[in-house]
Amino acid sequence: MNDLEKICADAYEARVKIGTLDTDIKNKVLNDAADNLLKAEKEILEANKRDVATAEENMKAKSMIDRLSLDHDRLLGMADGLRQIAKLADPIGEVMSMAKRPNGLIIGKRRVAIGVVGIIFEARPNVTSDAFGLCFKTGNCVILKGGSDAINTNIAIVKALKKALTDNLVSDAALALIESTDRETTNAFMKMDQYVDVLIPRGGAGLIQNVVKNATIPVIQTGTGNCHVYVDKDADFDMAVNIINNAKTQRISVCNACESIVVHSAIAEEFLPKLYDKLREHHVQLHCDERAQAILAGRDDVTEATADDWGMEYLDYIMSVKIVDSIDEAIEHINRYNTSHSEAIVTNDYDNAQKFLNEIDAACVYVNASTRFSDGNEFGFGAEIGISTQKLHARGPMGLEALTSYKYIIYGSGQIRE
Amino acid sequence: MNDLEKICADAYEARVKIGTLDTDIKNKVLNDAADNLLKAEKEILEANKRDVATAEENMKAKSMIDRLSLDHDRLLGMADGLRQIAKLADPIGEVMSMAKRPNGLIIGKRRVAIGVVGIIFEARPNVTSDAFGLCFKTGNCVILKGGSDAINTNIAIVKALKKALTDNLVSDAALALIESTDRETTNAFMKMDQYVDVLIPRGGAGLIQNVVKNATIPVIQTGTGNCHVYVDKDADFDMAVNIINNAKTQRISVCNACESIVVHSAIAEEFLPKLYDKLREHHVQLHCDERAQAILAGRDDVTEATADDWGMEYLDYIMSVKIVDSIDEAIEHINRYNTSHSEAIVTNDYDNAQKFLNEIDAACVYVNASTRFSDGNEFGFGAEIGISTQKLHARGPMGLEALTSYKYIIYGSGQIRE
Repeated sequence: MNDLEKICADAYEARVKIGTLDTDIKNKVLNDAADNLLKAEKEILEANKRDVATAEENMKAKSMIDRLSLDHDRLLGMADGLRQIAKLADPIGEVMSMAKRPNGLIIGKRRVAIGVVGIIFEARPNVTSDAFGLCFKTGNCVILKGGSDAINTNIAIVKALKKALTDNLVSDAALALIESTDRETTNAFMKMDQYVDVLIPRGGAGLIQNVVKNATIPVIQTGTGNCHVYVDKDADFDMAVNIINNAKTQRISVCNACESIVVHSAIAEEFLPKLYDKLREHHVQLHCDERAQAILAGRDDVTEATADDWGMEYLDYIMSVKIVDSIDEAIEHINRYNTSHSEAIVTNDYDNAQKFLNEIDAACVYVNASTRFSDGNEFGFGAEIGISTQKLHARGPMGLEALTSYKYIIYGSGQIRE
Repeated sequence: MNDLEKICADAYEARVKIGTLDTDIKNKVLNDAADNLLKAEKEILEANKRDVATAEENMKAKSMIDRLSLDHDRLLGMADGLRQIAKLADPIGEVMSMAKRPNGLIIGKRRVAIGVVGIIFEARPNVTSDAFGLCFKTGNCVILKGGSDAINTNIAIVKALKKALTDNLVSDAALALIESTDRETTNAFMKMDQYVDVLIPRGGAGLIQNVVKNATIPVIQTGTGNCHVYVDKDADFDMAVNIINNAKTQRISVCNACESIVVHSAIAEEFLPKLYDKLREHHVQLHCDERAQAILAGRDDVTEATADDWGMEYLDYIMSVKIVDSIDEAIEHINRYNTSHSEAIVTNDYDNAQKFLNEIDAACVYVNASTRFSDGNEFGFGAEIGISTQKLHARGPMGLEALTSYKYIIYGSGQIRE
């Protein structure tokens, strides 16, 4: 058994004990872990400095170095995140339903931990403490495989978190970091289905696709968002301008940002110039279909869309613009190109609002609101492990419940099957 | 686009229309499909005769030929199954929760179809109509890939079922049969993640493992059951004998049959001979650990267990017998060797019953009842697409709800995120 398999087997071995811990103990560990992060501030920030220096030497992108860098405030944020998770209600043990069958068997459905959760992520060190907090609160063992750029930081963070486990006499197999950062180890990890119940990749589309193609462990896909706002014939123009502006520019690099505008032809001529003026405040470039281009002719940063534009998640100050002649055409366009994340309609037409809610195939479907609300905190979950864009197990923002499974508990009195 | 990809793309294209059909139409189609099966009896049974003749020429196993063979009664059973599904409540559209957020957004969680379901199965033609019935009732398109041994039968059945779709002006992309039965097609099908949301393999362990290892589509694993009955120190002996006898011999080839007996050492000497006498009625062979073998010494069909026995799903008149000195040892043994299916304790000790329910890691955990109850009908679901032995999405017997996902529907009034 090599190091990687031992990590997975140890977590598997510990899963029942971790899954049946009392809530009080779990909360104590989470609060102690928060304290430990701050006590280890010097060690963690020094390790982080080394990682940042290496990343700079290797000419890594500025945005990546920004995500990698820790300081006092970010560490406080991580500790605060753990304390918030401690305050959330513990979903484990809830009996979701219970009923007596005609033969007297009493069958209950009890919420339980999943078991062993694997997280594969890139260079955000805060994922290390967030993922531990969410998985531990839900009674899961978590195995982390972070990017090589953050390896020293992650080792220091995991050391501080693990101390909270051992200080409370809880098996530290509840949290493991895979320290080898080579590709072979990552690929071998994805095939540890004997021990690991679910893999959640967190990062760019390349990382996620690699996991989906290679894992034998069940995967929850997260994070890619080609989100649309459809402006219906009966839309309130000011509301539509506000919502699109917010959904595009309030934060540019996130999966719930709007990437594509769909406008009904009956209002396009009046609406698009108003929208254009607002989006100019952020110098948003518009990649337009033929009709939209004709309406916005002569304006700066208005160019013709190519076939690739409709499926594009820009994560930048760029949007595609498509004009349609009916809500059916809008729905068909969105269902063809979206990534099953978040889609919005702006309308005052009751039937069209209902039709959009019914027929759009996405995790979150909005009437008259910004797609930016697709978020565990905004949904009232108190925390979030990611936003699922698949339909199995969990869809949309994933809070604590997404990290649980269930089992049937059956109380009998000697029943046998005839 | 080849034939296979076209089948998958057509189902994907049809998913929204099928997912939003009214319940009345769905039930009409299901009842018509039942009628059509009986109307096409001659054609279906003739096709089946050809498949059975080929299987016999190819010297296939008797049990396989039995599963493959159809007659009037079996066809009646299939039609009746579809009518039963028509009678079940439609889970689609249920709003599972809805709440107003502080900013006025009203966020609801609505049960929806998954989309496109793939089923890979062996030579049971009844799976064809069952899977269609369950998937269609839940608004899913289903793509079937059956074993080559049943290909003519499946073509005839699917033709009859599809007629019910087209007669009711419903897209017949709701049901597709992949007619190529070569391995390349099966492997290519498993990678159609662009179009297919979930794969459910139904068949032996070899088939399931092949799908798990090769699919890029999310898989729900079903069906392998190495189920235990643990007889605690405080068990009622008659009840324990009855339960084990039922769990082993009531039906031998099923996944919820008991394969392994675990007995507390304090009662083994008195209990095992009683159990032995009962199991002799069915000539059950016992593969025993050293202590159990000593107790049953000299009796027929009592042999020493090898290390392989503990993990074995015999599906035959064979059981392994293990003696333990405590409930903790019993739980550890079961959690090590079980397949996360169904496990039972027989006890009159309150604490031990609770401990077993809490700490056994399996889909269904029983106190004082036979493991044979792990079944969608016995659980009150009215139907079953399989028994999941994994923890994501669905666990244990899967009824209609297991074939659903959800989406968030959000009613706003112009909200943007600050």
